[in-house]
Amino acid sequence: MIAPGFTGGMLDRADPLRQDPEALAAAMGDWRARLLVLDNFEPELDGEGRLVWTTLADAPEGSDLLLLGLDNGKPCFAALTPGMQPPEGRPMRMFGLLDRFAPGEAATYAGARSLLDWHTRHRFCANCGAGSEINRAGWGRKCPRCHAEHFPRVEPVVIMIAEHDGRALLGRQPAWPPGRYSALAGFLELGESIEEAVAREIKEEAGVEVTDVRYIASQPWPFPSSLMIACIGMAKDDTLTIDKHELEDAIWVSREEVRAVLRGEPGQFLPPPPYAIAFTLLTEWANSQVG
Amino acid sequence: MIAPGFTGGMLDRADPLRQDPEALAAAMGDWRARLLVLDNFEPELDGEGRLVWTTLADAPEGSDLLLLGLDNGKPCFAALTPGMQPPEGRPMRMFGLLDRFAPGEAATYAGARSLLDWHTRHRFCANCGAGSEINRAGWGRKCPRCHAEHFPRVEPVVIMIAEHDGRALLGRQPAWPPGRYSALAGFLELGESIEEAVAREIKEEAGVEVTDVRYIASQPWPFPSSLMIACIGMAKDDTLTIDKHELEDAIWVSREEVRAVLRGEPGQFLPPPPYAIAFTLLTEWANSQVG
Repeated sequence: MIAPGFTGGMLDRADPLRQDPEALAAAMGDWRARLLVLDNFEPELDGEGRLVWTTLADAPEGSDLLLLGLDNGKPCFAALTPGMQPPEGRPMRMFGLLDRFAPGEAATYAGARSLLDWHTRHRFCANCGAGSEINRAGWGRKCPRCHAEHFPRVEPVVIMIAEHDGRALLGRQPAWPPGRYSALAGFLELGESIEEAVAREIKEEAGVEVTDVRYIASQPWPFPSSLMIACIGMAKDDTLTIDKHELEDAIWVSREEVRAVLRGEPGQFLPPPPYAIAFTLLTEWANSQVG
Repeated sequence: MIAPGFTGGMLDRADPLRQDPEALAAAMGDWRARLLVLDNFEPELDGEGRLVWTTLADAPEGSDLLLLGLDNGKPCFAALTPGMQPPEGRPMRMFGLLDRFAPGEAATYAGARSLLDWHTRHRFCANCGAGSEINRAGWGRKCPRCHAEHFPRVEPVVIMIAEHDGRALLGRQPAWPPGRYSALAGFLELGESIEEAVAREIKEEAGVEVTDVRYIASQPWPFPSSLMIACIGMAKDDTLTIDKHELEDAIWVSREEVRAVLRGEPGQFLPPPPYAIAFTLLTEWANSQVG
């Protein structure tokens, strides 16, 4: 399988360091410590597609340092700066950079971006409303009033194709670039398994019932903090009832057509970009035996 | 595969109803509407292991009604009551009930319990600190001041065994009943895939490196709101370095021994309970071909 985008991170998350204030202070004082260079939430890449780092001294006045992990023992941080605003809308400039990342670098960036984003949207305690404080080297917040602990949020999303008679169901959202079709997707809800969420979403969006859901792959998706869980379900029939609030259109496509489109040949649709797990999912499906 | 505990829910989640205040009001006025009977967070079961329901009129004064879904068209609600307190500690009485649930009933209860728990811990806007209000028929909260929307939190947890030379790695947490050993587990973090989280957790807790992680099954776990993702990874060797902050002990057990223990025969450990996905995972592993 092609490794899904944003996977393959090389940092040691160094969990014990997060819980040891003295060790963390020593890491901040380590001369090898380095700070991820960001313009608000956007990274800087060098000519080889590697993230650019600087020294901790370059953190803006009043920043909090979040421990991203250790790179061969070197402590790596990101700065949560006082004026940081959570990004809004589709990060188009960011998407343009994704093809340029060297292996593993997108994963480091994804973790940093999601963590920073979470802090900017969670400055207050959801339990009592007081301002909360950074905890665990950035991997949590704590309320000084009610003492509730809060942890960075990871949102599981199921992303899937239904299969019927050797064809895959793809959908199109209105916000996507013209011509693009991809896997259906939706947030997994409280009280359901991955397999149940897959079946519910395909039924809701396209009116198709699936069984025998199988897991294919997963990836972190840092816009802002999803865990994408890619699956395939077997459709009972191919009649579509499209929910127009969710999808602009949906189509059934053959393995042959998907293979051609993934090779870059013209077809009735444009595929998802390579860093999206939908690309991994479609590739796996197109190359699998007819089931 | 045995269906994991808390799966198999029969309610239609009725997403369109959540977004349509008029339709929701009509559902609340429907004479077939019913309210889940709860004593704070504990359910009541009838002699057949079915949840007990009552009429909406029995909701305590000042309650908010959360839409659980439709049961063959009948609107089903749970009441978020003014004095409701989030449960603390291990719900031992609850665990005692789990074997008694009729098929599908534990899933309905799991969704309701997690949703109520989330509301009790998230009465304030994490973005600005103002008191937030129930939204989307209970499947969200909205801030009247900054207009941020908040959605119920689902926390992905990886739960896994490492396999080496036909044996499985099991661990023991100090809080568990005497003699119990089960799969290792931990929260998936921002910026990692399921496979990466599995490898990290086994390395952190037991010092064992795994590759070739494969997905087995998932379940919702409503204490308070986890998505359990069960996997198996292939260990490079069997030398253990146990993190005593996480595990009291860890052992390698053969397929034969796991099979015997799951059949209820005496062995060197007691297995996890049947409603836990670790039970599903161990059963799958024990019955699989030697790989």
